[in-house]
Amino acid sequence: MRSDAIAIVGLGLIGGSIALAARRRWPSLHIVGIDRPEIVDRALGCRAISHAAVDLNALGAADLVVLAAPVSRIIALLAELPGRVRPGALVTDVGSTKRAILKAAANFISDFAFIGGHPLAGAATSGFESASAELFAGRRWLLTPSDKSRPDHLDRLCAFVSGLGASPDVIDASTHDRVMAALSHLPQLAASSLMRVAGEMTMGDGLGLAGAGLCDTTRLASSPPDIWTDICASNADHIGTALDEYIEVLTQLRRGLADADAVARVFGPARQSRARLEQALAANAHGAAAAGTGRVPVEGTEE
Amino acid sequence: MRSDAIAIVGLGLIGGSIALAARRRWPSLHIVGIDRPEIVDRALGCRAISHAAVDLNALGAADLVVLAAPVSRIIALLAELPGRVRPGALVTDVGSTKRAILKAAANFISDFAFIGGHPLAGAATSGFESASAELFAGRRWLLTPSDKSRPDHLDRLCAFVSGLGASPDVIDASTHDRVMAALSHLPQLAASSLMRVAGEMTMGDGLGLAGAGLCDTTRLASSPPDIWTDICASNADHIGTALDEYIEVLTQLRRGLADADAVARVFGPARQSRARLEQALAANAHGAAAAGTGRVPVEGTEE
Repeated sequence: MRSDAIAIVGLGLIGGSIALAARRRWPSLHIVGIDRPEIVDRALGCRAISHAAVDLNALGAADLVVLAAPVSRIIALLAELPGRVRPGALVTDVGSTKRAILKAAANFISDFAFIGGHPLAGAATSGFESASAELFAGRRWLLTPSDKSRPDHLDRLCAFVSGLGASPDVIDASTHDRVMAALSHLPQLAASSLMRVAGEMTMGDGLGLAGAGLCDTTRLASSPPDIWTDICASNADHIGTALDEYIEVLTQLRRGLADADAVARVFGPARQSRARLEQALAANAHGAAAAGTGRVPVEGTEE
Repeated sequence: MRSDAIAIVGLGLIGGSIALAARRRWPSLHIVGIDRPEIVDRALGCRAISHAAVDLNALGAADLVVLAAPVSRIIALLAELPGRVRPGALVTDVGSTKRAILKAAANFISDFAFIGGHPLAGAATSGFESASAELFAGRRWLLTPSDKSRPDHLDRLCAFVSGLGASPDVIDASTHDRVMAALSHLPQLAASSLMRVAGEMTMGDGLGLAGAGLCDTTRLASSPPDIWTDICASNADHIGTALDEYIEVLTQLRRGLADADAVARVFGPARQSRARLEQALAANAHGAAAAGTGRVPVEGTEE
């Protein structure tokens, strides 16, 4: 990657972790961080970034720009980039849904190149104070080029996210949004809805009788609501289909609680899918460990 | 506790762990284990039990009998106890629902004393090979006496489960079943239904794109179906109410995916309840640590 400087707009959990991982991988890389004054000051203080800025006028220095914000903010930011980013700059993002962002970016195809991104990494807490250079280690990072994207741009971005410790995977935006509706968005809605119901049904101190099962099943319910209003709105069609399927299975169970066959028709396939999931995640972990020994070097920024 | 011998019917994860924890706490206690030949042989081989038996005729030696089986099997076992248990024997169980079991036990009130039990402990794998003397350490163990139960029997059972490392809590069977519907049974049905839907919607190798969120949210989906057909049937009324509430919240979400307020109405209360859950579980852990220093000694079996 011929990258003299990168800029990261938004230094929360993901943006801050990108800065920290990039700084560790390429100690001399120039990293411009853009966020509120108190946040860029903190990032500068711990050397996560080389240059602190509070507005987008600082973008001209970068040939790779990363928009690290919730989906609706990313879409708003894209419209502010023309005239501010360097000609020929490559812009990417980390939003959890991709079709709406790619559609917005297509309006500025003569101003900058855009390839969407989605690191499959997170943490229970948000903000720069939770950021870590390790956040992406062994995690997948989905990249969603458009049909106009140049192969060298895609190579460049693959090398960048590999350098952060992640495994890049190329996927089209529509498939991304459909698969994430089932694998990420539905689990979030299921967990938050479950926590709301369990909390309401055990008002008082009844939650003290919960075991590890409720605790694991509702871990996602601590997610910040504002990120999820964006995700729900920008992927409403696929999430709606997934919710319909889920409500249908729950309704079948509800009607057949006293019928062992009806219960088994849910539990049997669920147990098989859970075994497949565990195999898939074990294969991912194995692949990540193997990839760690053969990471793609990043030209020009290699120390 | 004046207990010369205990008998455990069923040496799976829970029954096997009771044997191992009791053996460690009271090395000279006579423990009769009843199960299939290959299982009692294994339990005898590792000294978890003192005496192996394959039928209920061995129960006459015990003044405390623990039925460690799924709910429907416990109910069937109760009917086989008269004439086999010692007069004055105390019988308990470890079933996940309590009303149906207490109702069944009430038929034999002139034959033996019964107090229900439910240890809030489990593991990802089942069977004696997964049993551990540590399984109950710091966990609650709910006890459900009937209105006919003698206080000295309840004291005796509290001392026994304390000796296994658990914290006994007395609760009436109806409250138990209602609260567990929300805190244990609904999470299980939510997790299994979610895993079934996520598996079906990502046929092929799409599960490899799952993150830690789906993994945690569906951990319960590996539970054995046969235990859950019993639980669903024996607590269908309360589980039905909990499922209705859950389906209602999901339906509201489904209708309001593009409406930030509708999404926030689920996520906001869910996040608050999740914070309460984490506080409750932290308080439990703190209480368990404190209780560990002042465990109730068990008379007569103390070494």
